[in-house]
Amino acid sequence: MELTPVTDLPEIRPGDDIATLVADRADLEAGDVLTVASTVVSKAEGRMADLEDYPVSGRAEEIANRLEGITGEEKDPRFAQAVLEESTELLIDAPFLLTETRFGHINVNAGIDRSNVPDHDILLLPKKPTESAERIRSGLEACGIEDIAVIVTDTCGRPFRHGQRGVALGWAGMSASRDWRGELDRDGHELGVTVQSVVDELASAANLVTGEGAGGTPAVVVRDWAFGDHAGSDELFRAVEDDLVRQALREWSFDD
Amino acid sequence: MELTPVTDLPEIRPGDDIATLVADRADLEAGDVLTVASTVVSKAEGRMADLEDYPVSGRAEEIANRLEGITGEEKDPRFAQAVLEESTELLIDAPFLLTETRFGHINVNAGIDRSNVPDHDILLLPKKPTESAERIRSGLEACGIEDIAVIVTDTCGRPFRHGQRGVALGWAGMSASRDWRGELDRDGHELGVTVQSVVDELASAANLVTGEGAGGTPAVVVRDWAFGDHAGSDELFRAVEDDLVRQALREWSFDD
Repeated sequence: MELTPVTDLPEIRPGDDIATLVADRADLEAGDVLTVASTVVSKAEGRMADLEDYPVSGRAEEIANRLEGITGEEKDPRFAQAVLEESTELLIDAPFLLTETRFGHINVNAGIDRSNVPDHDILLLPKKPTESAERIRSGLEACGIEDIAVIVTDTCGRPFRHGQRGVALGWAGMSASRDWRGELDRDGHELGVTVQSVVDELASAANLVTGEGAGGTPAVVVRDWAFGDHAGSDELFRAVEDDLVRQALREWSFDD
Repeated sequence: MELTPVTDLPEIRPGDDIATLVADRADLEAGDVLTVASTVVSKAEGRMADLEDYPVSGRAEEIANRLEGITGEEKDPRFAQAVLEESTELLIDAPFLLTETRFGHINVNAGIDRSNVPDHDILLLPKKPTESAERIRSGLEACGIEDIAVIVTDTCGRPFRHGQRGVALGWAGMSASRDWRGELDRDGHELGVTVQSVVDELASAANLVTGEGAGGTPAVVVRDWAFGDHAGSDELFRAVEDDLVRQALREWSFDD
């Protein structure tokens, strides 16, 4: 398996066609996986916003005040309002905001980015990252490049382990997971691993070579990796009934 | 970045020298990262066990009975006892066991494996995976192969997202994370990503090419990846005071 960053992509602007920009610069072959960072997908989709776009609700005011009290840092209630508007559930409301976005991803501040946003205050995640991935895949087909799986990636933290790692937000042309259930090990025992989240693993692998900051590149080509002969699943985001941690968080609140 | 599985490794037995077995089969160069699945590290370290080795405590009996009642499946209290003995904290005791192992890793059933264990009932995780990684690294040096970073890997599930993915349990010859704090983006803003867990990302990348089951290979060579000029951190496992989810789980219990 080989990972190659796509270099020399320009700063992406609203309306830019990511598929064409990548097709012009990357060596892509049938069977490759292309990962694209959600930041550039969001920029192409015009998901920049300004804090003045968010008239503050009572709830956002309350959240920002409480976070100011806990952290001793200034908190803009308009930012809290933006987080609320991007979310369907607030899992943790202090000492930081952990929410479920409208497409099911759980992240701090609904994944809203305050760095890397020229001319605007904030960058929202793509509205429907799987549709974004499908558009890029179709765009590549329109350039004559067939059979490329596309993953829209992000980085985020997680419980139990420090640090952030690459994750998938949306995907097209492949399943999210390999389902090993029913497959056997060398000795004929059923395997311990049941479902392998390959889109997340590909996003993590890609994040190793993209880099962040001034030298960063948002797209990576993965070659010589195959999904293989396994059943597939497209369930990636856990619903609350499948997630004891979400259930525990519903009953818990931070003690200021 | 290129990932190549190490093929033709024999079934690993207690006392086997993984470094030599890999050195004989893999093309390794200074600067490469070698990932090794914890299953083979455990086997080399003799971490197989039998359920009869675990005289059952009252707590294990209680746990197994409760899990039987909830799941309707037979539960061996000796297995619950093994999980307790490998753990320092039981984070979830129903409807399954989520624990912190003695080296800080949080996993279902303390990561004890019931498949892939010839001649024994169960396979425990390595006792100190970072020491295991250091031993493999030193072993490679003894074979004349210098400057190889080694990661002992596992696969496990996680909250919020379905499916398992590769993670690091121990590492040697590199830091666990790149620390980007203070570094700037193209526009001179401080980066949103702060600490990148590269050992976990490398473990995830490797898991894409190892495969499971009969055709699986437990070791992978990563070439042309560099940690780069960043500060490093070796904190991977969150302590409870840095982990709101662990705090929430302490206050929560499953409602049978």
